[in-house]
Amino acid sequence: MHFLAAGPVGEVIPGLLSLGQLLASLVIIYIASKVGGELALRLKQPTVLGELVAGLAVGVSGLRWIDPSQPVLLLLAQVGVTLLLFEIGLESDLRGLLKVGKQSLAVGLVGMVVPFGLGYLVMQSVGTTSLVAIFVGAAMTATSIGITAKVLSDLGYLTRDEGKIILGAAVLDDILGVVVLSVVSSIAGGASLELGSVLWIVGTSLGFLIGAIVLGNLALPLFLRVVLILRTRGELLTAALIFAFALAYLAEQLGSAAIIGAFAAGLVLAESDRRHDIEKQLRPVTDFFLPIFFITVGAGVDLALLQNPQALGLALALTVAAVVGKLFCGYAAVGTRANRLAIGAGMVPRGEVGLVFASVGLTSGVLNGVNHTALIIMVLLTTFLGPLLLNWILKKEPA
Amino acid sequence: MHFLAAGPVGEVIPGLLSLGQLLASLVIIYIASKVGGELALRLKQPTVLGELVAGLAVGVSGLRWIDPSQPVLLLLAQVGVTLLLFEIGLESDLRGLLKVGKQSLAVGLVGMVVPFGLGYLVMQSVGTTSLVAIFVGAAMTATSIGITAKVLSDLGYLTRDEGKIILGAAVLDDILGVVVLSVVSSIAGGASLELGSVLWIVGTSLGFLIGAIVLGNLALPLFLRVVLILRTRGELLTAALIFAFALAYLAEQLGSAAIIGAFAAGLVLAESDRRHDIEKQLRPVTDFFLPIFFITVGAGVDLALLQNPQALGLALALTVAAVVGKLFCGYAAVGTRANRLAIGAGMVPRGEVGLVFASVGLTSGVLNGVNHTALIIMVLLTTFLGPLLLNWILKKEPA
Repeated sequence: MHFLAAGPVGEVIPGLLSLGQLLASLVIIYIASKVGGELALRLKQPTVLGELVAGLAVGVSGLRWIDPSQPVLLLLAQVGVTLLLFEIGLESDLRGLLKVGKQSLAVGLVGMVVPFGLGYLVMQSVGTTSLVAIFVGAAMTATSIGITAKVLSDLGYLTRDEGKIILGAAVLDDILGVVVLSVVSSIAGGASLELGSVLWIVGTSLGFLIGAIVLGNLALPLFLRVVLILRTRGELLTAALIFAFALAYLAEQLGSAAIIGAFAAGLVLAESDRRHDIEKQLRPVTDFFLPIFFITVGAGVDLALLQNPQALGLALALTVAAVVGKLFCGYAAVGTRANRLAIGAGMVPRGEVGLVFASVGLTSGVLNGVNHTALIIMVLLTTFLGPLLLNWILKKEPA
Repeated sequence: MHFLAAGPVGEVIPGLLSLGQLLASLVIIYIASKVGGELALRLKQPTVLGELVAGLAVGVSGLRWIDPSQPVLLLLAQVGVTLLLFEIGLESDLRGLLKVGKQSLAVGLVGMVVPFGLGYLVMQSVGTTSLVAIFVGAAMTATSIGITAKVLSDLGYLTRDEGKIILGAAVLDDILGVVVLSVVSSIAGGASLELGSVLWIVGTSLGFLIGAIVLGNLALPLFLRVVLILRTRGELLTAALIFAFALAYLAEQLGSAAIIGAFAAGLVLAESDRRHDIEKQLRPVTDFFLPIFFITVGAGVDLALLQNPQALGLALALTVAAVVGKLFCGYAAVGTRANRLAIGAGMVPRGEVGLVFASVGLTSGVLNGVNHTALIIMVLLTTFLGPLLLNWILKKEPA
């Protein structure tokens, strides 16, 4: 809070930024985000990785220009994640998953179960509670559809068998991932660990997701008719935001997570012929909010915790479990001539989805600083190693 | 706070919204904004008018679903105004003003001086302090370039002499308006009313504006070269936001207003060949934030204050002064065969610029509820009467 505290405070409520402080924070966040992202791109790495490292540089482990516990920044970061999940939903394709079929399903499921089990075992071996072990295991199940799709596209593999299977499995992991996050969030929020209650949350989350998609699809023609009637500026984007935020709010009120609602809204609107128009107008808004998320997440990593040999060891053990677990799942793709090790490598990056888990774990109080930092390092390393491995396996330089 | 208070509060800091509460507020704001805007359009009125009335309906004088004093909403509304002024700057053209020449200059200046004088006299006649009279007079000088340009375009008058002169004068009023706002804000913030201090603020504001434009133009080639180097997503918008927010922050730190910096940034970037690309990507972001401003402003209007005959009388007296003052300025356009009454009518809408004045006046404590409400009603009525008058004078139905 170093830099920001230098700004005018005036009549501002404690914990709330003034306009000047917010603008200064945004300038720092955008510059860090671009410097980090562009450097990563030049080093042929995912831009998310660069943004996280840049966040680290301006956060508690570096210059301390961004306070990652600032409530307004955290709120805007949450809006960013909600918009990201809405956009991922818009880019997802339920029918695409059905077409790539059995292989994607097998890779996706094995790619969740095995990393969950390995993560759970690692945490149990260091003597944490079951709740922490479940949370960390759940965070290991994530696959970053954004990073994975970007890497495949950079390598020119999006239209090949490996690419299709990875994308299908990543879509499945995305859908199940938000359900898993909802389950562990509810558990972390105090819900009992009894099987009945877990099944209830799974049922609610899946029920909400399916219900929202079914009802949303029924409401879609009405939505499109209303949009056609509207003639004021920004009519399509505003209508899409109403749709997404209303579902996100409803999901949260029903005990699920806001991001599930936003994701469901995206999946529904992905079926409309205005999908690409919505995506195009949504992108600048996501570009406004999302860097706040990546930078504040990076800014929250406290590297001093790694002086603790236990935290460093844990981070490395989790990373090995995370990589091995996902590499293994490639071999679930039976009945294809695609390179199965490459499929596994494509599933390795945890990216933004893993970060959502880590951040929910920290704010809900389930994860302590050591566990949270180990998880973030695991996300950083898998996000870094995934493209490296994929590139190495396919023996081809990224375009 | 009725509706919002029903949401989950949890570990949220007092005064700060939870994600669910923010999403619910945004849904209400967007629905109100669209319903109001679309109804206004159908009634052939400016959409801003409809949004204000809709804000009134969901605010303290109506359903009380939106709390206009919620700090996070106010902060996001301020971001919206900053983005609006950036966009207005991008749409403005300094050279365009120079071309339409003397007439625009005369109309613009007379259109500021006469309404200021009339507003000052009205307030003095009801016995307010000089500070309040100056503030209200200053609010009367505004011209809404957005509403005016939209109305002219709707009537097909943008390319005719009347349209060019009005636009030029409105651009001038926009530039001088933010300087005037900066002056009265500083005075309201406790700066002395002595001539020396007023001149100092005028000098600082004008100096900053000119300096920012000159230095900005020098930095423009560098900015464009940096943007060309960037290859990550959203590179143009993020770079433009860094430019705008940095200038806005700088303006505020130098004792001027954030909106002056944003406006200067827009004027500078308007000179670049990427102007239209920036505008296109900025629009969805403005569309996200700006309704928060219009709806919270409308929501803050307390109609109960009009039961006070003094407030109602004041609102009507200010409206007459505002309309007469601007109609008069059309006659300053000597040496043209354009319809001078139409030019004056085109200058009548105060719109968003007038609302910024009213809102600064309220938050700085200069305006009490009665004066603030009278000013808002004046803005509403002029925004409503301007297009009506223009239409009536040009004896032509809006397209």
